[in-house]
Amino acid sequence: MDKLLTVTVDGEVLKFPFVWLRDNCLCEQCFHPTAKSRVYWSDLHLKIKPKEITEGKDSIQVTWEDGHKSNFEYNWLKIRNFTPESQRKYDEVIYKPTKITWHGEEFNDICSKHDYNQIVKTDEALYNWLYKLSVYGVAIVKNTPNSENAIDAIIDRVAFIKRSHYGVKFVVQHISNTNNLAYLSNNLQMHTDLPYYEYGPGINILHCFVQTVSKGGENLLVDGHYIAKYIKKNHPEEYKLLTEVDIEWNDMGTEDGREFFKLYRAPIITLDKYGEVQRINFSVPQRSSHFLTPIENIEPWYRAYSLFLQLCHKFAGKFKSEQGDILVFDNIRLIHSRNGYVDNENNVRKLIGAYIDWDEIYCKLRCLTMKLGYNKGFN
Amino acid sequence: MDKLLTVTVDGEVLKFPFVWLRDNCLCEQCFHPTAKSRVYWSDLHLKIKPKEITEGKDSIQVTWEDGHKSNFEYNWLKIRNFTPESQRKYDEVIYKPTKITWHGEEFNDICSKHDYNQIVKTDEALYNWLYKLSVYGVAIVKNTPNSENAIDAIIDRVAFIKRSHYGVKFVVQHISNTNNLAYLSNNLQMHTDLPYYEYGPGINILHCFVQTVSKGGENLLVDGHYIAKYIKKNHPEEYKLLTEVDIEWNDMGTEDGREFFKLYRAPIITLDKYGEVQRINFSVPQRSSHFLTPIENIEPWYRAYSLFLQLCHKFAGKFKSEQGDILVFDNIRLIHSRNGYVDNENNVRKLIGAYIDWDEIYCKLRCLTMKLGYNKGFN
Repeated sequence: MDKLLTVTVDGEVLKFPFVWLRDNCLCEQCFHPTAKSRVYWSDLHLKIKPKEITEGKDSIQVTWEDGHKSNFEYNWLKIRNFTPESQRKYDEVIYKPTKITWHGEEFNDICSKHDYNQIVKTDEALYNWLYKLSVYGVAIVKNTPNSENAIDAIIDRVAFIKRSHYGVKFVVQHISNTNNLAYLSNNLQMHTDLPYYEYGPGINILHCFVQTVSKGGENLLVDGHYIAKYIKKNHPEEYKLLTEVDIEWNDMGTEDGREFFKLYRAPIITLDKYGEVQRINFSVPQRSSHFLTPIENIEPWYRAYSLFLQLCHKFAGKFKSEQGDILVFDNIRLIHSRNGYVDNENNVRKLIGAYIDWDEIYCKLRCLTMKLGYNKGFN
Repeated sequence: MDKLLTVTVDGEVLKFPFVWLRDNCLCEQCFHPTAKSRVYWSDLHLKIKPKEITEGKDSIQVTWEDGHKSNFEYNWLKIRNFTPESQRKYDEVIYKPTKITWHGEEFNDICSKHDYNQIVKTDEALYNWLYKLSVYGVAIVKNTPNSENAIDAIIDRVAFIKRSHYGVKFVVQHISNTNNLAYLSNNLQMHTDLPYYEYGPGINILHCFVQTVSKGGENLLVDGHYIAKYIKKNHPEEYKLLTEVDIEWNDMGTEDGREFFKLYRAPIITLDKYGEVQRINFSVPQRSSHFLTPIENIEPWYRAYSLFLQLCHKFAGKFKSEQGDILVFDNIRLIHSRNGYVDNENNVRKLIGAYIDWDEIYCKLRCLTMKLGYNKGFN
């Protein structure tokens, strides 16, 4: 092809389209140095070609037909190489770490423990916690100070809270006549939090401020990606229903004097356009009685749903938080539930909760990757 | 089929699957009266059948094989009817109003004006503003008090702000050595705000606190859904590229002493699984130089991109805010830009901005629909 620049870097022959090179010219006329972005209004150079190419020691200079000059460092080009291998490496190092799925029996192995004070104090501990969380979808923070505001300091280390109609932070404890089953001491069924939000909260942060001394109060946690993989392999018909039939997730009520009426429609397993699991939506209590699918789907869907629910219990790990633990998990990947418990006068179970979005977590991971020099070659 | 209940309501024969009826039993054992949700743990009744059915005046009682009794009001059943017509009506009245696309020449007709004080004071005005905003993607609030906090009152009427790494609220005015081109007085190119967020802000709220007296400073606003429809019809090859090729949107820098490094990948036109436009992502300045697609896509994609950008300008409406206007628009549907302007010592253009998510806006619309009795039959 005559529309590509060919350049050899470290012995490897790399190719780059002219149109892309011109579009990404880094001179001050084309690229704003502090805003770090393109400046042009609408004038693309779709058919541009170089007049002259000069290979220097660290960079290559292209003089275009119209006289404009662009300079590209070899390393800058190398990390933008258009081969699948190069792109995969960039994905893993910079974009997002690859997830590893797990069965409940492996829960103790995959669920890493992190020290509260270390996270507050050091970037390495902060990185390690967020990295494990993104790979496994769960990680526990230990040794949290006995303060109702303790989660603020670690949230501030990451970014800021995602607010919902339940408030900025929320308290999970037994309330009679509640607007949400989570605020009872009964069994709380398998669910993801707020599936009725199109922008479902990325991670759930649950600080165990007081744990019940009674039996119960354990969390069951299950990797929805593991379930999806299992169903895809062993029950293809059910997989089709769980990934295609839209469910209406809902929440209606009043919180702090304000009414809410949330609806969001999505299958239990949402796939991206490559067929990869993007998000798990699940809630026994918060599935709407409005079911917007052809009637012939209903019975088969309920069978698929029943299978999914059984597997939630079968593949779950069990964990009872201790006072001072913060249970942190991926809320659009893991499904969780809680066994019933019995409060007494001197022992009222109390969790302090908040959410952060994945946009902010991956953002922090990338900043730390760069700062700590974990960006092997991508700088 | 023998797995369906048949019931005649207002002369119409309706059918409901037994499994769905049992799942949605509204008795206090099955459904929590204040939390308004299902109580069961994992015991689905996939094969259940009725033992006895008794049709009353307002409701039908089903006694199941196991002796459990469920009661369903005819009206409750009617609005959950499984026919496409009934479901479409529910969509329009309760779920989300249908969008209407527009060409820039129609801008003055489709862009409704709303009074700030009326929105603060009356539910009807609040509903009307949010309804028009959801249908057309743009609506202007007039007569805003001359205070830097004026937007707080109307945001509080809806819900709360979506925060980003640029802060809770943000100020748009000329800053040298900025981290964002929006903070210059040059031409600001066609873009959606924060396309590098997976959870892109739903609406953009821009209070014109001081407008420039110079020429320029107008906004161009274009309906991305209109462009998508046009390209789909007239340029199918380009439509394929614009809906399929992932673009990496990016933003790197420092704000208030905190670093950010956001990346999100999506095509310019994101489709849902029904092939409908879900979201528009666009930004001349904030498109990454990392392009994670096979090299043979690059040239054709740039041609499609160039077409999209030309149409942004061709189909745009133009609007110059006056002091006291709040320009509010759908940030995942409209693409906007701003003509350059010239500040002087006594006249520094200044906008106060904030975002709200669509989750909260549709939620408020539904609450108002119910409160104002606009829910024609759905109660």
